[in-house]
Amino acid sequence: MLTKEHIAQKFRTLQDDICRQLQEADGGGKFTEDNWLRAEGGGGRSRVIEGATIEKGGVMFSAVHGPLPEVTAKAMNLPPTTFFATGVSIVLHPHSPMAPIIHMNVRYFETGSGRWWFGGGIDLTPHYVVPEDAIFFHQQLKNTCDRFHPDFYPKFKETADDYFYIRHRQETRGVGGIFFDYLDENSAGMSQEQLFAFTYAVGQTFAPTYVPLLENARNRRWGEAEKKWQMLRRGRYVEFNLVWDRGTKFGLETNGRVESILMSMPPIASWGYNLQPKPGSPEAETQAWLRKGVDWV
Amino acid sequence: MLTKEHIAQKFRTLQDDICRQLQEADGGGKFTEDNWLRAEGGGGRSRVIEGATIEKGGVMFSAVHGPLPEVTAKAMNLPPTTFFATGVSIVLHPHSPMAPIIHMNVRYFETGSGRWWFGGGIDLTPHYVVPEDAIFFHQQLKNTCDRFHPDFYPKFKETADDYFYIRHRQETRGVGGIFFDYLDENSAGMSQEQLFAFTYAVGQTFAPTYVPLLENARNRRWGEAEKKWQMLRRGRYVEFNLVWDRGTKFGLETNGRVESILMSMPPIASWGYNLQPKPGSPEAETQAWLRKGVDWV
Repeated sequence: MLTKEHIAQKFRTLQDDICRQLQEADGGGKFTEDNWLRAEGGGGRSRVIEGATIEKGGVMFSAVHGPLPEVTAKAMNLPPTTFFATGVSIVLHPHSPMAPIIHMNVRYFETGSGRWWFGGGIDLTPHYVVPEDAIFFHQQLKNTCDRFHPDFYPKFKETADDYFYIRHRQETRGVGGIFFDYLDENSAGMSQEQLFAFTYAVGQTFAPTYVPLLENARNRRWGEAEKKWQMLRRGRYVEFNLVWDRGTKFGLETNGRVESILMSMPPIASWGYNLQPKPGSPEAETQAWLRKGVDWV
Repeated sequence: MLTKEHIAQKFRTLQDDICRQLQEADGGGKFTEDNWLRAEGGGGRSRVIEGATIEKGGVMFSAVHGPLPEVTAKAMNLPPTTFFATGVSIVLHPHSPMAPIIHMNVRYFETGSGRWWFGGGIDLTPHYVVPEDAIFFHQQLKNTCDRFHPDFYPKFKETADDYFYIRHRQETRGVGGIFFDYLDENSAGMSQEQLFAFTYAVGQTFAPTYVPLLENARNRRWGEAEKKWQMLRRGRYVEFNLVWDRGTKFGLETNGRVESILMSMPPIASWGYNLQPKPGSPEAETQAWLRKGVDWV
């Protein structure tokens, strides 16, 4: 068995590694850090950036513990117990409409009654879908998954399609990615060490996957029209996170740390009334990609 | 008993009246109209404006009917039945950070099994709280309420304080107003005619209350800093509507007409990380007013 201290320490190192790589790629911005404590136990180390390439981003580490909130215990069919949770969460909103928004989360959860599991995922939300980027992105995720289990990529890809879905708009948030939860000793015949190695590998895949996507976007020109579309797409991102994202809803309903939960919000977003992209436009093309079940690899 | 056709027709007239008054006050913009039909029955007449004073606003009329959604029937302890609902809904986002956002809704609901009730309310969300404006606003609402029942204003004011509350921020959405629901023959010893007269009077109070507030704001100067604060306050408006507003949540979860439901969204909104207004600043003053239980009249 791995100790929770070990896992938390590794996640903290992951946060350091990712911030270093992102700061280098940003080419101008610097992460600022603030540490916070949770009244009931534990705390976190938040790192946020307003950079040259990344307009607003957060790479958040936390390790919290205490009594398991009643609503969680209920939802999970557990008697009153304690919990420990640690993880790294990232959302990055680039300046350029031609670069994608990205989200990553890796986490470990343990209850006082001896249950434990890993969860996490990475998903990509381009303002303009560039098929080559989406293929590269999914290929990277698949490579990482395949090192651990042949079922992981197809299964977690489908879960991401279902999860990152804006039901009221009947569109996916972006081009998906992978999403997994409740990975425990019963999930894949793998040990805790192996499942942690997988989860950690997902975390390590993040920077080498996103940095090239930022590079690809550097040469793409954009103007007013693209910026306007980006704002609208960010509006959809807000809609998904505030209306459908389980983590956000759960956090806000159980008095989680608001500033950490809502670091996923874009710096600016916009809404119009009944806007439809012109048929045949790049915006309409993107809209057409926002569906479940696209096989990118 | 009033017929539902009569009530719908009156609400449609209310929409006309309000649009006329707002268009005149805007001094430049014009409402554009679109009509929509609902697959299950009924439809609506949407009026939206992007004006000289109102940056983005909607005055929506609808009259819909059909089988009562299962989730509603359940929530209301009703056997499977049909329903009819009609009303007018308004949200206006002004250009000027010195003018308030306003929301109004008046509605009538009737089930196939013979139950009926009225609901509605008006609430004000200043980007900068101006006590004189808040006093005038509440006095207007109180005057209307007092014409019908001495308990209405204090009761509905308290309900609005509780309803328009951003729980995760521990702040009210603005300076409140009035909010009422399930007004039926058991609520106040008043007939259906009297309750409709009250609800309609609330609707008629809207324009003569908001137009003077727009006028008051015309002479107030503002710049970059005020605009920035406005964007952040609009972000909170989004948070309330998408996370806590029952009507929005219900509409999105039951396949309501998305464009009508989300007409409440601001044209542009923004989010920062861990921003706090400077102590003693006008922004901090506004923040201090965003609490329940302020007695404005």
